[in-house]
Amino acid sequence: MAELLTKRSTDYAQWYNDLVLKADLAEHSDVRGCMVIKPHGYAIWERMQQALDGMFKATGHVNAYFPLFIPKSYLAKEASHVEGFAKECAVVTHYRLKSDPVHGVIVDPEAKLEEELIIRPTSETIIWNTYRGWIKSYRDLPLLINQWANVVRWEMRTRLFLRTAEFLWQEGHTAHATKEEALEETRRMLDVYARFAEEWMAMPVIKGVKTASERFAGAEETYCIEALMQDGKALQAGTSHFLGQNFAKAFDVLFTNKENKQEHVWATSWGVSTRLMGALILTHSDDHGLIIPPKLAPLQVVVVPIAKSEEQMAAIAAYIEPVLKALRAKGITVKLDDDDTRKPGWKFAAHEFKGCPVRIAIGPRDMENGTVELARRDTLEKQVIEVIDLADKIEHLLQAIQDNLYQKALAMREAGTRAVDTYDEFKDVIEAGGLILAHWDGTPETEARVKEETKATIRCIPLDGERTPGRCMVTGKPSAGRVIFARAY
Amino acid sequence: MAELLTKRSTDYAQWYNDLVLKADLAEHSDVRGCMVIKPHGYAIWERMQQALDGMFKATGHVNAYFPLFIPKSYLAKEASHVEGFAKECAVVTHYRLKSDPVHGVIVDPEAKLEEELIIRPTSETIIWNTYRGWIKSYRDLPLLINQWANVVRWEMRTRLFLRTAEFLWQEGHTAHATKEEALEETRRMLDVYARFAEEWMAMPVIKGVKTASERFAGAEETYCIEALMQDGKALQAGTSHFLGQNFAKAFDVLFTNKENKQEHVWATSWGVSTRLMGALILTHSDDHGLIIPPKLAPLQVVVVPIAKSEEQMAAIAAYIEPVLKALRAKGITVKLDDDDTRKPGWKFAAHEFKGCPVRIAIGPRDMENGTVELARRDTLEKQVIEVIDLADKIEHLLQAIQDNLYQKALAMREAGTRAVDTYDEFKDVIEAGGLILAHWDGTPETEARVKEETKATIRCIPLDGERTPGRCMVTGKPSAGRVIFARAY
Repeated sequence: MAELLTKRSTDYAQWYNDLVLKADLAEHSDVRGCMVIKPHGYAIWERMQQALDGMFKATGHVNAYFPLFIPKSYLAKEASHVEGFAKECAVVTHYRLKSDPVHGVIVDPEAKLEEELIIRPTSETIIWNTYRGWIKSYRDLPLLINQWANVVRWEMRTRLFLRTAEFLWQEGHTAHATKEEALEETRRMLDVYARFAEEWMAMPVIKGVKTASERFAGAEETYCIEALMQDGKALQAGTSHFLGQNFAKAFDVLFTNKENKQEHVWATSWGVSTRLMGALILTHSDDHGLIIPPKLAPLQVVVVPIAKSEEQMAAIAAYIEPVLKALRAKGITVKLDDDDTRKPGWKFAAHEFKGCPVRIAIGPRDMENGTVELARRDTLEKQVIEVIDLADKIEHLLQAIQDNLYQKALAMREAGTRAVDTYDEFKDVIEAGGLILAHWDGTPETEARVKEETKATIRCIPLDGERTPGRCMVTGKPSAGRVIFARAY
Repeated sequence: MAELLTKRSTDYAQWYNDLVLKADLAEHSDVRGCMVIKPHGYAIWERMQQALDGMFKATGHVNAYFPLFIPKSYLAKEASHVEGFAKECAVVTHYRLKSDPVHGVIVDPEAKLEEELIIRPTSETIIWNTYRGWIKSYRDLPLLINQWANVVRWEMRTRLFLRTAEFLWQEGHTAHATKEEALEETRRMLDVYARFAEEWMAMPVIKGVKTASERFAGAEETYCIEALMQDGKALQAGTSHFLGQNFAKAFDVLFTNKENKQEHVWATSWGVSTRLMGALILTHSDDHGLIIPPKLAPLQVVVVPIAKSEEQMAAIAAYIEPVLKALRAKGITVKLDDDDTRKPGWKFAAHEFKGCPVRIAIGPRDMENGTVELARRDTLEKQVIEVIDLADKIEHLLQAIQDNLYQKALAMREAGTRAVDTYDEFKDVIEAGGLILAHWDGTPETEARVKEETKATIRCIPLDGERTPGRCMVTGKPSAGRVIFARAY
């Protein structure tokens, strides 16, 4: 399998495409820009969903479901919102097909909608139109709601997981009585995303604020988490928006406060998507195939028996059975791969390629010696160890792999991050990739010029770390602190 | 709350609508035919999903995700399929909006799709078009895949949960090497649905086969589970289809069998939807509000303190804390409702209305006596019991409520089912509602006549029970056995 994979050093983009297809994660469908998420890919996404959903609920959120369709006029109600999304909207205009003697099945011209419906590119408008009916008084606030859904943003140039016309995501939409509470919620959810990225995906992220030009259409402030991929490009992994009263004003959502006065409601929205699948792959995987952090691996441990007869196979199954039981009791997913139509070597390669974190191999000699061979996917190291307390050892090993992947990714990011003071140096350094900390004068003109000349964008103004003033690398004007530039996915 | 609810005996349909709205389960959106599933409704649906998903996985299925959009030409490939769905298709024709100086935001006429896209009403066509690339040999079979998704079937007359333009569902799509295997899968999933309905929803169902006229568009055989609602109408709660080789032929899906010959693949599909929410409500709830079987209740136990001071509230919280812990350790969801802005009476009514299965009330005297007051939602019975071993007692009570709801629904169905031998009697009996077992000559003509004259349809030809031949109640022609007639949702 791995021999079918382009090497990262040869062509990183091709390596990614090969891997997504050949590890059975996703494929392009015949429908322009839409992907099919295959079972192995979907199983990883399900684990991401479960973890995130648990974190949302632990922070007081509940799930709900709002319509797929948004009337065109709703989208138009918030001016900058419609401007941001108008160019990528799939539009439903009819509601019936009919048979035509000449052309076969055609769209029935008599079934034209009075008002066109947009497939949601995001749901602020339909949700705030609904919230108007739900919020009357301060007692109805805060409203902390999340939705798991599909959305459509018509894209001309697509890449599996990273940029597709239809994608899966969650979108939180919360309503608050005060600006402070809404800002607090925006940052709380940013923290949840950062924690998820680091603890589950083993992917270190930088928390920051977007510049005005990179803000969500309709937001007052967009917070984000940014990660560095192996090829030196940055990837925005999640965003949390402070929407001010923009949508409350557009949809007339008022509440009676404790002083019995009418006020517009304050809003946030926040989302992560199947794009995280792309981030996961780009962060950890290697020329041997996929590497999945144990906490997100659908199959955490695989047992490959090396048997020459049915009797040996049965003996190995009996030998390992108590370990399987003990692992399952710990909530660890494990499978004995006893498919007798495949050779052990084929199985080794297949599970390695698909990213199973731990492999146990057992042959007749292992049974004699009371041992097994343990292989870890992250380092490809193998060791022969005693079968005694194996489940405990594996539990520790899975944690060690999770930690190692994070540390490795963190070391990669640190090696790939540097401070630069002059624009000449910047232009050099950006060619090698990585995150660049540089001073910027705060103007959209300078930001646009850097983008135009170097293809690098300001990923964020980081929240953590010191903010030492300086001079803009381009214009020499004062800067409040370094911001992060990078070329990005 | 309950006083806002129309009585079932006054207007059953209105009672249902009131309840769905006032118990915060769902509401109509401004988008024609689409509903908003509110948090309380969605929380019940999530529990249904979890239970079903577990059952699907336990029977070897995995999840995946296929595109929302179906090219019009795909839908047209299976003749009876397109005929069945053409009249209710939402059609995407454009992919961009633009600003117009006169009309504001308009659909950009230059962004017209070459081929229109249909929002999936069901995914057989897009999935079988994909399976062509996945299935080459008998070794790739069976393919056991499920998808959780939203679908759209344009409906003119909608009712919350029961019939909406957009709804949520799961659709299983499996591929097999032989007809026998596919038929076995069709029945296996029917059994899964029946087990879910009975064990989780506490809703007894009859397993059966649809007549040709009620078959899924594109199926060779449609199996179903049918339930009887409190108002005497039947409700189809799930279907499992044997699709033969129809879709494999329409999409050229061939495999090499063990004899090295090319054959078309055999298919099944099966689905249940948010319609089950309607079935759940219509089966159990009463004039006091919602009744949710404990296994599906988002909140299984609520504790209402009856305190006159903050000290008393704190004392009650301390008194019940070990019980809360013990309940949570058993995986039972419980909440201490310590909101001091609401009176106990208000809370009693609210939790009763929203269907919480068990309520614990605690006042100062209870603490003196070492007791609590326990109220069960299904019978509205109250009893004062000792706090010792309370968690165990509640665990048993929850099971007793689950069992009682099933037995009550079963008794209702049995009372509502009768055998009828003449068409005159049938016309009388059908007015009272219920399931009618009657002989039918097997012709679509007779079936259509009964429907036309009585609004009753053949719900199914039951799979279980004896099949004693007789004579058709309408034509007197021979019948192989009684079938089930009813008016249906």
